[in-house]
Amino acid sequence: MASEPAPISFARGAPSLDIVDVDGLRAAADRAFQNDPAGTTAYGTSIGYVPLRTWIAEQHGVAPEQVIVTNGSMQADAFLFEALVEDGDTVVVEKPTYDRTLLSLRSRGADVRPVDLHEDGIDVAGVEALIADGVMPRLAHLIPNFQNPAGYTLSGDKRRALVALAAEHGITIFEDDPYVQLRFSGEPLPTMLSLDQADRVVYASSFSKTVCPGIRVGYLVGPEKLIARIAKLATNTYISPNMVAQSIVNEFVRADGGGAFERSVARVKDALQERAAALCAALARELPEARFVAPQGGYFLWVELPEGTDGDALFAAAAERGVQIVKGTDFLLEGGENAFRLAYSGVTVPQIEEGVARLADAVRSLGVAA
Amino acid sequence: MASEPAPISFARGAPSLDIVDVDGLRAAADRAFQNDPAGTTAYGTSIGYVPLRTWIAEQHGVAPEQVIVTNGSMQADAFLFEALVEDGDTVVVEKPTYDRTLLSLRSRGADVRPVDLHEDGIDVAGVEALIADGVMPRLAHLIPNFQNPAGYTLSGDKRRALVALAAEHGITIFEDDPYVQLRFSGEPLPTMLSLDQADRVVYASSFSKTVCPGIRVGYLVGPEKLIARIAKLATNTYISPNMVAQSIVNEFVRADGGGAFERSVARVKDALQERAAALCAALARELPEARFVAPQGGYFLWVELPEGTDGDALFAAAAERGVQIVKGTDFLLEGGENAFRLAYSGVTVPQIEEGVARLADAVRSLGVAA
Repeated sequence: MASEPAPISFARGAPSLDIVDVDGLRAAADRAFQNDPAGTTAYGTSIGYVPLRTWIAEQHGVAPEQVIVTNGSMQADAFLFEALVEDGDTVVVEKPTYDRTLLSLRSRGADVRPVDLHEDGIDVAGVEALIADGVMPRLAHLIPNFQNPAGYTLSGDKRRALVALAAEHGITIFEDDPYVQLRFSGEPLPTMLSLDQADRVVYASSFSKTVCPGIRVGYLVGPEKLIARIAKLATNTYISPNMVAQSIVNEFVRADGGGAFERSVARVKDALQERAAALCAALARELPEARFVAPQGGYFLWVELPEGTDGDALFAAAAERGVQIVKGTDFLLEGGENAFRLAYSGVTVPQIEEGVARLADAVRSLGVAA
Repeated sequence: MASEPAPISFARGAPSLDIVDVDGLRAAADRAFQNDPAGTTAYGTSIGYVPLRTWIAEQHGVAPEQVIVTNGSMQADAFLFEALVEDGDTVVVEKPTYDRTLLSLRSRGADVRPVDLHEDGIDVAGVEALIADGVMPRLAHLIPNFQNPAGYTLSGDKRRALVALAAEHGITIFEDDPYVQLRFSGEPLPTMLSLDQADRVVYASSFSKTVCPGIRVGYLVGPEKLIARIAKLATNTYISPNMVAQSIVNEFVRADGGGAFERSVARVKDALQERAAALCAALARELPEARFVAPQGGYFLWVELPEGTDGDALFAAAAERGVQIVKGTDFLLEGGENAFRLAYSGVTVPQIEEGVARLADAVRSLGVAA
């Protein structure tokens, strides 16, 4: 090619601007300062903006005291790990899982135990086998819906089995659920939080995917005592989270009795469904040797190429063609050389088609047999 | 009294709503979403919203690479302590100092060494004496302007002496300067950051006192390598800070070529000056035994009563009269029983006069001799 190809990024799990409701946000910001100038501009406390905390509690059918609203759900994870994970504690994670969770747990000195992730979620027998071997997890980190990086969803049966296992063995399940609102096919499944009768589940979610990432509002729902402990950690870390942002989110989700929020999320889901379909079709057409599972929601697709594919070489060959992907090895303690993650949230359908064509060209340049 | 007295709080270092420019904030929020919808709503990176980072760098005459914008300056402190303070490291603090800084340093296992604070700032000879005794501080935390809790300001001569001492002994000065813009009398003094030629000063400030606390935007300025290390910690903690809030602040400070911001801060300073004058006059009239120094800016006044005053009893007697103060002991590792902090930022002049009258009544109820 005479000129550099236009960059196409399948790398970052973030929405493209066209599926962010900027006008809705502008209007929500205006109402936030108008309707509650004191609450919006003052420090508040570490539990977050009270009306938003109440709204979240209502959504989950829990008491407000079970909720803390934070500066994004990564910060919520950090507080939770600080509260629960000591050096040497065993933590079960999915294999593969979110790279930042791996990093965060390892930096705390956790004994991280990845358990295979199947199309219907984590291998419950694998968790049971760990316990049978005398390795008792303190915590199990699970991304139940449209998992990052795999796009897979934990089945209802497995949710029930895991909640029972947690109750029996005193394991805390960290249900990390930022994509739950982005289901574009299939039926919604109950959260493990709602199935739990033994105070063994802590649930995290975020408005990054339904409002916008730059708003940095996430939250935890869990047992009241644990939330109170985390609120104390939060006070000592930052006094209080961003009240302006949380007040804007509160106005955004409550507008028109929730109808405006619902329509905004519906637009996001429609776009994601279209993008996921385009991506699956393009992969099937251009890269018939690729294995993947069509997702029912969310941002991500996990693609496996035949064993022996050199992931580092593929990453480089794709980058040479202006295409960014994330290496499978980033989501695993070992293995994953023949896999990669594609995020379809930030690319349009024409970019997807062009991007997959270039990616296929990159794969062929490695001499991988179909 | 037949009914409870209306509560008057001298406790929290926060502005009353009447000195927050809510209309300016509403307009800034509107422009943020309109002028830069992509930058405002996207994740961005951990160094913060780029145009605001640039503005801050310009204000301090440094390269943008020397600046990181965070979710409030407490979070900036937390990152800085994480980067620089190991278990057992010696850290010099002012005596008294901000209670949350003490807490944060002690929770990291620092060997905290309080050095007397005088009307013109920390006792430099006290720091030199520590060094002469072989106690080499890793870090010295100083609040140079209108100190919290004392309201005192570090003199120009002492600033120069401390910067020289830091360069000579390889001590890092943490110049914690959230109140600098709130000078209502006397001449501004150079920052230690601007005096430093040896990369020994890290400077922190915030928009909590000039825009509003609920916006939670603070920042650090320091050597490029240290800022890069802190940016990495920030990425691992929360990916990125609040872009919506930082974009709003950027629009707020840049409106009308900075003129609108200047007028807004001038209104805040006028109100604070009036409140400080009213507080000093009321104390002199109602509590002639109280010792204090009239502040040249900021939010706080440190009041000392005669030796032997029971601070806990005074706190309780004030609370019975609906008056909230903060005990002097909160700002010290030991001592301070006869002292307390008054914040005049959140109270109107009539509240100040009524509050000091009740406080004097509380003091008299203890039987303290004038």
